[in-house]
Amino acid sequence: MSELKGAMIIGQSGGPSSVINSSCYGAIKAGLDSDVITKVYGAANGIVGVLNDKLYVMDEEDPAELEIMRYTPSSALGSCRYKIADPDVDDTDYKKILEIFKKYDVRYFFYNGGNDSMDTCNKISKYMNKVGYDCRVIGIPKTIDNDLYGTDHCPGFSSAAKYIATSIVEVYQDSHVYDKGQVTIFEIMGRHAGWLAGAASLANVTGFGPDLVYLPEVDFNMDEFIEDVKAIWEKNHNVIVAVSEGIHYADGTFVSEAKTSATDGFGHAQLGGLASRLADVVKNAIDGVKVRPIEFSLLQRCAEHCASQTDSDEAFMAGQAAVNEAIKGATDKMVGFKCTRDANGYKCETELLDLAKVANYEKKVPVEWINERGNNVTDEFIKYALPLIQGEIKMKWENSLPRFVKLKKVVAK
Amino acid sequence: MSELKGAMIIGQSGGPSSVINSSCYGAIKAGLDSDVITKVYGAANGIVGVLNDKLYVMDEEDPAELEIMRYTPSSALGSCRYKIADPDVDDTDYKKILEIFKKYDVRYFFYNGGNDSMDTCNKISKYMNKVGYDCRVIGIPKTIDNDLYGTDHCPGFSSAAKYIATSIVEVYQDSHVYDKGQVTIFEIMGRHAGWLAGAASLANVTGFGPDLVYLPEVDFNMDEFIEDVKAIWEKNHNVIVAVSEGIHYADGTFVSEAKTSATDGFGHAQLGGLASRLADVVKNAIDGVKVRPIEFSLLQRCAEHCASQTDSDEAFMAGQAAVNEAIKGATDKMVGFKCTRDANGYKCETELLDLAKVANYEKKVPVEWINERGNNVTDEFIKYALPLIQGEIKMKWENSLPRFVKLKKVVAK
Repeated sequence: MSELKGAMIIGQSGGPSSVINSSCYGAIKAGLDSDVITKVYGAANGIVGVLNDKLYVMDEEDPAELEIMRYTPSSALGSCRYKIADPDVDDTDYKKILEIFKKYDVRYFFYNGGNDSMDTCNKISKYMNKVGYDCRVIGIPKTIDNDLYGTDHCPGFSSAAKYIATSIVEVYQDSHVYDKGQVTIFEIMGRHAGWLAGAASLANVTGFGPDLVYLPEVDFNMDEFIEDVKAIWEKNHNVIVAVSEGIHYADGTFVSEAKTSATDGFGHAQLGGLASRLADVVKNAIDGVKVRPIEFSLLQRCAEHCASQTDSDEAFMAGQAAVNEAIKGATDKMVGFKCTRDANGYKCETELLDLAKVANYEKKVPVEWINERGNNVTDEFIKYALPLIQGEIKMKWENSLPRFVKLKKVVAK
Repeated sequence: MSELKGAMIIGQSGGPSSVINSSCYGAIKAGLDSDVITKVYGAANGIVGVLNDKLYVMDEEDPAELEIMRYTPSSALGSCRYKIADPDVDDTDYKKILEIFKKYDVRYFFYNGGNDSMDTCNKISKYMNKVGYDCRVIGIPKTIDNDLYGTDHCPGFSSAAKYIATSIVEVYQDSHVYDKGQVTIFEIMGRHAGWLAGAASLANVTGFGPDLVYLPEVDFNMDEFIEDVKAIWEKNHNVIVAVSEGIHYADGTFVSEAKTSATDGFGHAQLGGLASRLADVVKNAIDGVKVRPIEFSLLQRCAEHCASQTDSDEAFMAGQAAVNEAIKGATDKMVGFKCTRDANGYKCETELLDLAKVANYEKKVPVEWINERGNNVTDEFIKYALPLIQGEIKMKWENSLPRFVKLKKVVAK
């Protein structure tokens, strides 16, 4: 493969995570270190920044400050949820992107995100190929949902998993403090895939974990849920429940959105109110019980102070690999992880996957990893997830508060 | 003061914190190390354990395991919210307590808790004195609410403050990621005192803090709140708000409990739904705005992994001081902190305060530390609180998850 000199763009897209900036920094650093890449641009708010001709010149940033990106949560370049059109239907955006690529001599395009971002990446890759513009396009995976196809896991998932498991171990101490006991219900992100809700079960490794875990991979049955909670309550006078926000009834209706009877006080519930909703159901089912709904909300995807060092390192590796493989000639790919878990421990290597195969598929928790009753995960899940949360993060503190990156963001002209 | 040989009891009461066990361990260790104290008992669920003759023999615990208490959140001995009667009205409980004290030759009683616990402690102290039973009684402060009278601050507050400020700095990154912006509303504990809500403003030290902070020390005005949010939204297209759960209107009604008009969809709101409630108000006031309510809930009082080492060390010191001062002869006191903040930095020493003076007073944030508009705290607050959150916690991890204490809890016979 011949050497391709030119500039690179890196963009971040979708919901952020604790380590997406670590990937981004890995890519930026590899770009800055390379003789082939002439300039490193960061797209302001993902593909929207390309469309609006708003690119930050990363070469202008102070290297020491830039390095702090590695331990800064969320997307430092800004993100977007822009849905790019099918180029066969409307190629306006693609023409604009091509124009910008030509303007800045962009020969490398890296896109850091989840399912939708890989779809965007795939479409841009195919378009550039079709119009014969020589540009290498690589996707860098990111999603706390862990639902990207073809890769062992996704950067971002592991840190969210560590935060959730850690917080449950801690709240377990709190919720067991009174002799009266309580039911605690955690609401966890994951609309269609239950990886993060399953991660709650990692807390059981410490002896202080949830009794019940509900994933969207199986249908939710409210009567069985009440039965399960009641049974544990009668035995222990304390119940800890973890539920995915995406749990749904057999007919597909989300439990968080289902219209219920007038007697429970709900009309059409707000999204995100699932834990409170289930708390009310439990209160009605068990006389005088104290119930605490806890929603992790945004905290679970940006809690850098409780991120997994393994996750951060792997994210960085994925960003670096994207750029280094592109320089060597790779294009139209996503960086994935190939991992082994055996007697020698855990090992993780990057590999390249076809963008077309990755885009728009959702990887769910295997049903074999969910117990028969559908109210917990099996040991297989723990074996899978425990290596991913290893290592306490080496983030920077200043005044004993997080010291996050402050970029100059010099806009390219 | 003559030497008083005998056993000691330590009990924990009220809502737990990240460092109440550090205090408890400080007291237990001082007791175990002393020749004067013959036996160290931990009361199961505070005073309820004394009344029920359920005392754990701390001498039976493995010393290395016991030490892990120092970095275990919540109340390892169990807690209670038992309201003890006025002894002049009903002395049944006191007679029972005296009986237990005599049974185990208890000459030292330590009670670790907040306002109500100091009231219990005070009443027991006065009763033992009245009936002429020689027993030294000392309170060890604990409350994330930071509202105990006479002491510079309370163990537990600083760690909750650090967790809240850290989390806000992190969520700030997340909430600023999209070009559309959002309004984020944090709901923080503190029914009558706004210390913890004020602590949200510590995040501003990093440059990533809340725009608006509302404390229960001043009346809340919904119209002004809407005006304030709107003004910042128009300027920045992003607003971060921190509110104390205890904010109330001028007539004293809690905002979280107030009946509002039928149009906003609320009847009598549940406690703890304040952030969601305000989110709805903002959505109605600003067209098309995205609003995220986040409730810290129990997480803020047990997030050991983000506790303040200063807090943990001071909590330990308070527990040790209680026992050592009692051995020297002190009784009828609470351990308090006397602190200096000047050019030489921050210094904290223990001092003894009369229980009667401490019990049942609530210390609030001085109104001079709240700005005129009533929507933020002043620099004085930051100067007060910043030294308290210093130092990242040295807790124990196992499998990269928290390793918390597992006590044998051998019950005394």
